[in-house]
Amino acid sequence: MDLNSPSLNHLLDCWLAEDLGRGDLTSIALINAKGSANWTAKQDGVFCGGDLAKCIFQRLNNSVQVQLLIKDGNAFKAGQKLLQVEGPAAALAAAERTALNLVMRLSGIATCTAALVKELEDTSVRLVDTRKTTPGLRVLEKYAFRCGGGLNHRLGLDDAAMLKENHIAWAGGISKALESIKAESPWPSKIIVETETPKQVEEAIRAGADGILLDEIIPEILISHIPKWRDLASTRTKETGSDQIVLEASGINPKNLKAYAATGIDLISTSAPMTRSYWVDISMRFTTS
Amino acid sequence: MDLNSPSLNHLLDCWLAEDLGRGDLTSIALINAKGSANWTAKQDGVFCGGDLAKCIFQRLNNSVQVQLLIKDGNAFKAGQKLLQVEGPAAALAAAERTALNLVMRLSGIATCTAALVKELEDTSVRLVDTRKTTPGLRVLEKYAFRCGGGLNHRLGLDDAAMLKENHIAWAGGISKALESIKAESPWPSKIIVETETPKQVEEAIRAGADGILLDEIIPEILISHIPKWRDLASTRTKETGSDQIVLEASGINPKNLKAYAATGIDLISTSAPMTRSYWVDISMRFTTS
Amino acid sequence: MDLNSPSLNHLLDCWLAEDLGRGDLTSIALINAKGSANWTAKQDGVFCGGDLAKCIFQRLNNSVQVQLLIKDGNAFKAGQKLLQVEGPAAALAAAERTALNLVMRLSGIATCTAALVKELEDTSVRLVDTRKTTPGLRVLEKYAFRCGGGLNHRLGLDDAAMLKENHIAWAGGISKALESIKAESPWPSKIIVETETPKQVEEAIRAGADGILLDEIIPEILISHIPKWRDLASTRTKETGSDQIVLEASGINPKNLKAYAATGIDLISTSAPMTRSYWVDISMRFTTS
Amino acid sequence: MDLNSPSLNHLLDCWLAEDLGRGDLTSIALINAKGSANWTAKQDGVFCGGDLAKCIFQRLNNSVQVQLLIKDGNAFKAGQKLLQVEGPAAALAAAERTALNLVMRLSGIATCTAALVKELEDTSVRLVDTRKTTPGLRVLEKYAFRCGGGLNHRLGLDDAAMLKENHIAWAGGISKALESIKAESPWPSKIIVETETPKQVEEAIRAGADGILLDEIIPEILISHIPKWRDLASTRTKETGSDQIVLEASGINPKNLKAYAATGIDLISTSAPMTRSYWVDISMRFTTS
Amino acid sequence: MDLNSPSLNHLLDCWLAEDLGRGDLTSIALINAKGSANWTAKQDGVFCGGDLAKCIFQRLNNSVQVQLLIKDGNAFKAGQKLLQVEGPAAALAAAERTALNLVMRLSGIATCTAALVKELEDTSVRLVDTRKTTPGLRVLEKYAFRCGGGLNHRLGLDDAAMLKENHIAWAGGISKALESIKAESPWPSKIIVETETPKQVEEAIRAGADGILLDEIIPEILISHIPKWRDLASTRTKETGSDQIVLEASGINPKNLKAYAATGIDLISTSAPMTRSYWVDISMRFTTS
Amino acid sequence: MDLNSPSLNHLLDCWLAEDLGRGDLTSIALINAKGSANWTAKQDGVFCGGDLAKCIFQRLNNSVQVQLLIKDGNAFKAGQKLLQVEGPAAALAAAERTALNLVMRLSGIATCTAALVKELEDTSVRLVDTRKTTPGLRVLEKYAFRCGGGLNHRLGLDDAAMLKENHIAWAGGISKALESIKAESPWPSKIIVETETPKQVEEAIRAGADGILLDEIIPEILISHIPKWRDLASTRTKETGSDQIVLEASGINPKNLKAYAATGIDLISTSAPMTRSYWVDISMRFTTS
Repeated sequence: MDLNSPSLNHLLDCWLAEDLGRGDLTSIALINAKGSANWTAKQDGVFCGGDLAKCIFQRLNNSVQVQLLIKDGNAFKAGQKLLQVEGPAAALAAAERTALNLVMRLSGIATCTAALVKELEDTSVRLVDTRKTTPGLRVLEKYAFRCGGGLNHRLGLDDAAMLKENHIAWAGGISKALESIKAESPWPSKIIVETETPKQVEEAIRAGADGILLDEIIPEILISHIPKWRDLASTRTKETGSDQIVLEASGINPKNLKAYAATGIDLISTSAPMTRSYWVDISMRFTTS
Repeated sequence: MDLNSPSLNHLLDCWLAEDLGRGDLTSIALINAKGSANWTAKQDGVFCGGDLAKCIFQRLNNSVQVQLLIKDGNAFKAGQKLLQVEGPAAALAAAERTALNLVMRLSGIATCTAALVKELEDTSVRLVDTRKTTPGLRVLEKYAFRCGGGLNHRLGLDDAAMLKENHIAWAGGISKALESIKAESPWPSKIIVETETPKQVEEAIRAGADGILLDEIIPEILISHIPKWRDLASTRTKETGSDQIVLEASGINPKNLKAYAATGIDLISTSAPMTRSYWVDISMRFTTS
Repeated sequence: MDLNSPSLNHLLDCWLAEDLGRGDLTSIALINAKGSANWTAKQDGVFCGGDLAKCIFQRLNNSVQVQLLIKDGNAFKAGQKLLQVEGPAAALAAAERTALNLVMRLSGIATCTAALVKELEDTSVRLVDTRKTTPGLRVLEKYAFRCGGGLNHRLGLDDAAMLKENHIAWAGGISKALESIKAESPWPSKIIVETETPKQVEEAIRAGADGILLDEIIPEILISHIPKWRDLASTRTKETGSDQIVLEASGINPKNLKAYAATGIDLISTSAPMTRSYWVDISMRFTTS
Repeated sequence: MDLNSPSLNHLLDCWLAEDLGRGDLTSIALINAKGSANWTAKQDGVFCGGDLAKCIFQRLNNSVQVQLLIKDGNAFKAGQKLLQVEGPAAALAAAERTALNLVMRLSGIATCTAALVKELEDTSVRLVDTRKTTPGLRVLEKYAFRCGGGLNHRLGLDDAAMLKENHIAWAGGISKALESIKAESPWPSKIIVETETPKQVEEAIRAGADGILLDEIIPEILISHIPKWRDLASTRTKETGSDQIVLEASGINPKNLKAYAATGIDLISTSAPMTRSYWVDISMRFTTS
Repeated sequence: MDLNSPSLNHLLDCWLAEDLGRGDLTSIALINAKGSANWTAKQDGVFCGGDLAKCIFQRLNNSVQVQLLIKDGNAFKAGQKLLQVEGPAAALAAAERTALNLVMRLSGIATCTAALVKELEDTSVRLVDTRKTTPGLRVLEKYAFRCGGGLNHRLGLDDAAMLKENHIAWAGGISKALESIKAESPWPSKIIVETETPKQVEEAIRAGADGILLDEIIPEILISHIPKWRDLASTRTKETGSDQIVLEASGINPKNLKAYAATGIDLISTSAPMTRSYWVDISMRFTTS
Repeated sequence: MDLNSPSLNHLLDCWLAEDLGRGDLTSIALINAKGSANWTAKQDGVFCGGDLAKCIFQRLNNSVQVQLLIKDGNAFKAGQKLLQVEGPAAALAAAERTALNLVMRLSGIATCTAALVKELEDTSVRLVDTRKTTPGLRVLEKYAFRCGGGLNHRLGLDDAAMLKENHIAWAGGISKALESIKAESPWPSKIIVETETPKQVEEAIRAGADGILLDEIIPEILISHIPKWRDLASTRTKETGSDQIVLEASGINPKNLKAYAATGIDLISTSAPMTRSYWVDISMRFTTS
């Protein structure tokens, strides 16, 4: 995560401004006080967002000192101290909610991701995310997914072509669609085709796709077809495609995850860490000096 | 929700840009096609974000037509059509994810809020939210909470003063803290004091607080003390405060919600719809013409 | 005043850019010189904007040293030195006008406010401002009003509900309007009703208003009615409103200010410091080294 | 005034957002109403900002209809209708204050300028403004000055070089300063020298200045010296300057304005319309339909 | 090119503002005139930027009518009319330079690219660009390159990994570098290795690179080695890489382009259209009505 | 060049963000390494943009150390070291392309300008630029032109009035156009008239123009007319204009430059350094430590 990115800093400023509005009414009572505070986990989890939290406090007031007691991607236990902060009390109080909200959300994603990744730990299958992310937080939520041990899928519409049913219909078939895309896509970029039936998978392989998204195809069918699909890909030539094909299953849930992992698939995609995870509970307590 | 707000439009632009990056690679295959699509609920829920979705499609391309089939705040059933959209296929495909992500998140909040509010339906207690909201989405998530039947608590640090333990410590006690705040707070603004013990509640009432946040005080204690606290408030004069006090309980969960509602409290605050709700699942399917 | 606010810093940058345009043509002659300068008051007044001025110089060039010789809210005499600045001459010359313009305007407001507040010094009546502020300077001009001893009225349309004649007409009467607002306003927020006749005042009190704006009602009428209005409020119950009512007079001028202050009113609102005050004259003189 | 300027539109958006904050709390009561309103002058004056007001209403909601009943730069009488507006009531109420604040300030400047210009009406002397303008409003306040009949002086530091005492000191004298500036200033730009004594005026003319700012030099001295200064300029050659010199007096006030105008000066500069004028009072009244 | 992109519109606004500054001084003389104008090519070339030009005129004033007489990517002859524009004369004059500057630059790139692409027309080699683009114009200049018949190379640092000499040194060798990248790169993304010797090429192929950038390796060496490199790649397995390798030559010039094209290479990269092309000369003439 | 300008810093941030996108994929392999690098010229030229390059590196990461080995405006030879940079390797790699692209473009302009200025070195004629500049880079490209020894012409539409054929037509003739402009242009600003025939030149002089742009009038005609035009100007009085006229030739090329310089002209304008120059080639090589 590149905290020096000018765009990220701009976002942090907007988020601070969102909570501050026209100024913190409550801090009038404490104008010149110095203070310090700790962050303590109220449950187990995987941490994410430490450097961001530091940056949020310091953009509000650059005399704030922040000490991170845990690294992003590491696990923590309920009751564990995660971060210490010291500086002008008004600044600590004003940045508290923004910093906590971000870290609680990101750690929630990392924690959920880590639990799913653990299910895959004895396999070579990688867990990948989707474009279902909170508007405005794409890069950060995808970073949290990596902190939980996942691998990012494309970060935006410009990152790779991914042909869905309707693209194929508009283009007049899988072959035509792939042909148009290949002629115009920048080098190097790959092309994925989303499929719902074995027949579509075969068409896509023949047409030269680099990857296939197998949407809600049941494990039994995958087990029986994947070897054939890999064979089919291995016959491709330079003109028709690589000899390898990356196969990705979607539509999984925690219960059938292991069944999918045993099908010979390469990737399993899930939006659950972004759409079905709870925020991790962390509290900030001011310390008496 | 004021869709004409210049700041909101600016946010929508940023969110579209976040997904578009340097341009949608896949839409090359469909440059001049027109298309139409439907949004269908894949589960029951309460809808939120329809006008926003419309605005997202139209900011990308103002020739897109959007027809809303449900109003914000209304309940829907799995399988129900929620929205129809028609226009240049490339624009529909490019705005799809941003619009859906927003509506799925907001409807998730509205749905969760509505379920909690239903628990309170035979009482005069109102459910209020907190400042635990996703950075960048404060106004929209609070709008979703209202769509679910909740009442908003303060929207930012500038909306009302709320004295926490540390503010009181820095100011040198509840009375001093309230005195400073009152002298400087704009008219009209109210002052809330966060308390953890009955003793603190009484001090705060005597010092002239408008509202008391009772943080994780158990229902049994509330039942026995609330009448006394209201009596105490009723003895306040113009110099010392209003004769009424607004009492708000926090730290509740779905199981003890009804017990809290029966204590004589005015408000119950919860962050659950923002921090512990799932996105509502909605799919967008292109229609063949 | 929170100088660390990201939004405020953005404003300062825009103001510097407004004067600089494509670059200061005159400073070509002095590129490497160091310089120092003093700010001197050319008339008596109340100071406002010192930290802002410092911030303006330092955003242009962070090696500039600024020493404030007076605090915001303090009075000064003609001829008094207010501020010393030292650093690259080109930066001093380029930031001079922006910094002075801001401080002269804000000190003008503080000075005018202080004069009006002085008229009220033996009373418990507080002077409040209005939303008549220069576009772009709302937060700063309201800060200047506080520096002059005033109390801020609501800072924007989102700060409290204030029902005017037309709102009441659209809603179908004072009671209906208050009912709608109360059901939707966030907690804690207060509701003010603007009135022009005693009859309206009574309706508003009965309907549960927290405050009444008495627009251009003459002192004689206020004197005779205010006790009755307070009595009426004191009969309100939890269902109908607080037992107290905040009464605010508007439409005053310097001549009738004391008459209004003697009516038993709580607040007197005025836009005069923003709309009818002169800038305080301050000069910046470079010193020879 | 170019209302299509992208930068101006951005400013209008910021000003609307400044008042709206997180949304207009009061308009909840009137969500679907349509409304209309008139602007009426409460005093005599010169109008400025009509197109801007129109633009402010329409940026908030582009279905608002605005009819201007007076042109910028025209005089109006107390009681005169200036503008009619019609559209969604919530939008009218939300944009009202921003639009009025701007027009009242700008009309105040135009009115004050017009009064001063009237004093010069039988002379060939033009009134010019200064860079003492409200931060953020430079272009608009200078436009208002033109609406009042004045002529703009340079709009920013990049518009022309203007050598002050300290520039001259740093450069090592008037000749050296002018030489450096001339070598680097873009074509076509002019150079003004600020002077406080006749001796400095002569040096500046000899060094090739295009204009001289005569700062607080009394009329008697101007009368006796101006012919000599013009003679001196007329002897300049292509190498040393134009044969003409533009002479500008500053430090004037309403009382001595005519005396200065009679000295043979070309321009009189004043910041009074920006720093010492009152806002013109205009009210907006909703009409019953 | 997606003209509806919010980011692109923001850029166009900035560019208009850059030329307008505080407003077009010359247009004062023509305030209410309507006008029309033609764009005429003063030399042969390939056109690029028509829709952008249209958008620039219309963002300044949305009543301007623009008729494009040629499509982007098409060739034109000296003297050919390219575009007609009609509307408020002040708007036409104010947008003229910005629109022309952009189209002249982009058409210059397209024209230069087309000439190079023509050299490759009987081969299967594609011409690709580089990240040497004018700051702020990346997406548009790469679009112009496509209009000239080229294929875009990666659009930014986030588009694909490209290991240079120093990356390899820091990581401790080609294998280690590729291993780290592969473990963290999002799916689907490819990895390119920049090489300067045949030995490095072989290492990179063995380590699993998707593409090799052959930097300034002479044609003779390429001819003799490329078959061996393709053979080496064909032996890779799923664990070690694809059986195919994309080979890209850089360091070419117009004279040796054909020699490189005959080596068996896949891609030839060049920055010449961005760094060594002239603007195409186009004039705008107002027409008399 | 004022590197402290807030607007310039904002531009640099945008340019870095343009290349970084969602983050540098390649730098994953080198996360904690420190590095250093040199910039070396690959050809002769005149340098421009050193401070900008420094600023670009440091805005990405303020711990980067940059040492400039040459000043803007100085000539360098192929092989000469120009700049050294040291700091976190990831930051050096991420800022490299943006910094080099800018300096290569600006140095290309300075180099081309210097070559043209050299042709004029024994004359008093100054080379001036035009408004043909890359959108977004106006101030920087004009700075590069000064670094090459040129003099800037007006920087934008607000810098001076310049009447072209169509302005004159709309205004109803040269005299009327000049009259309108003079009445409204701010003091001090000059007026230039663009002409194509000697007849127009004379009209413009009589009407009081400050400067004449002689567009594509051949040297022979200039030689014979210039003395007459200067005579004509010398007869102007205060009412009709200055006794001097600035004459500027456009439409020149490298071959006829000296012929134009010998005509008695004051200025020669050219867009060649912006529209017909190559980028100067500079390489950045990381050094081993």
